[in-house]
Amino acid sequence: MLRDGERLDELNLKDLVIIQHKDKFKFGMDAVLLANFVTAKKGDKIVDLGCGSGIIPILIAAKTQDTFIYGVEIQEDMADMATRSVVINKMEERIKIIKGDVRGLEKILGYEKFDIVTSNPPYMPVKTGFDKKQKSENIARYEIYGGLEEFIKAASKLLKFGGKFFMIHRTERLVDILYFLRKYNLEPKKLRFVHPYVDSKPNLLLIESKKGSQPGLNILAPLYVYEKSGEYTKEIIEIYSKTQLEEE
Amino acid sequence: MLRDGERLDELNLKDLVIIQHKDKFKFGMDAVLLANFVTAKKGDKIVDLGCGSGIIPILIAAKTQDTFIYGVEIQEDMADMATRSVVINKMEERIKIIKGDVRGLEKILGYEKFDIVTSNPPYMPVKTGFDKKQKSENIARYEIYGGLEEFIKAASKLLKFGGKFFMIHRTERLVDILYFLRKYNLEPKKLRFVHPYVDSKPNLLLIESKKGSQPGLNILAPLYVYEKSGEYTKEIIEIYSKTQLEEE
Repeated sequence: MLRDGERLDELNLKDLVIIQHKDKFKFGMDAVLLANFVTAKKGDKIVDLGCGSGIIPILIAAKTQDTFIYGVEIQEDMADMATRSVVINKMEERIKIIKGDVRGLEKILGYEKFDIVTSNPPYMPVKTGFDKKQKSENIARYEIYGGLEEFIKAASKLLKFGGKFFMIHRTERLVDILYFLRKYNLEPKKLRFVHPYVDSKPNLLLIESKKGSQPGLNILAPLYVYEKSGEYTKEIIEIYSKTQLEEE
Repeated sequence: MLRDGERLDELNLKDLVIIQHKDKFKFGMDAVLLANFVTAKKGDKIVDLGCGSGIIPILIAAKTQDTFIYGVEIQEDMADMATRSVVINKMEERIKIIKGDVRGLEKILGYEKFDIVTSNPPYMPVKTGFDKKQKSENIARYEIYGGLEEFIKAASKLLKFGGKFFMIHRTERLVDILYFLRKYNLEPKKLRFVHPYVDSKPNLLLIESKKGSQPGLNILAPLYVYEKSGEYTKEIIEIYSKTQLEEE
């Protein structure tokens, strides 16, 4: 199942594993935080936009019951790698990886058919003069195939009325995020900032929005990653060590 | 100078005082935090929207050089009290209190004439069936005469291109605040959340926006109010004890 340059990494969760390539984008703490932030009901239909290695569909499948998750990834080689990770984990009945673009995705997966959409999208806007013929690493990091607005628009089209969109992104984009969420009728309901340390600026944010909801935002207590000593905080250790992740 | 029910409170800053009425809205920590958050250059022309007792114009006049500040207040009795506080502090050359509405204010003060606008606006939306014939306390707390959008629109009309708007508000309104700021071309540049304790949700936010600016938000490190012991944090003590407030 492994190709040149690939390796099998353990997730330390229900014996799950994931294939990653040494030279391509590898999942980080943000994927773990997002999967932990997502709440899903039994039987929910879910789409993960820009699934990369498939880490988020795999973690969500592991923490929920009877859900079905589409992982959508534009890069052929990443989608292929994610598909093989799904097979190795025997999750073919729960997860389907699709090689595709977020733009126009509702024409393939259906309009307003989903309970939940998740995304850990590319974080960086494409700079002027940016070379689009870049390797995998850049496609995962930069908004080459669809920027923030296209991801949010896609989520809105896929979600049923009352469906939820969960995303992790960088704090610099907060204004864009909230502006586009409201523009596409995904009202922000919960927002949690992730701070490296208690006294440092937040660098990431977790956000839950709900299609067609009334305004009213709950900003949660901060998530601190490190203690002053440089060790992980208790909460981060808990998030990483959960072998049975909670369900709503 | 004092009328029935009024008292003279010391500000513990350059011998400044303020008149407050025992039954009317009195300034709180939010006014002090906002005044501390504002940065003004020598000679700036400033408007404070919904100035109440005049606390923010008085604090800003004390911390800046050669600035001129209009304080706009819709309540006749509050505007009158604020005017007397200006006189007692011998700040008539620096501050002018105007009894008026934020709606259409640019017709009185001039369109795009100001460097800075500040506001600690009423926080609470008017509920259905809310009795408009309420006392002063409710006019200061509820959006009876102009809601959040009207305050932001007024700030945008008053500010020069590149001028700055500083506001303090409740975190529940974050989406509305960012949405309206962008709608009225006041791009959010700095955002600071105020948390009662390190592990609690933020309840207030300080925001600086700039008219006509490019997007790009800097979320600052949090401002914590209390230590676990219940005492004020060092930073809050500093903000309150500054006898010579800093200038940009």
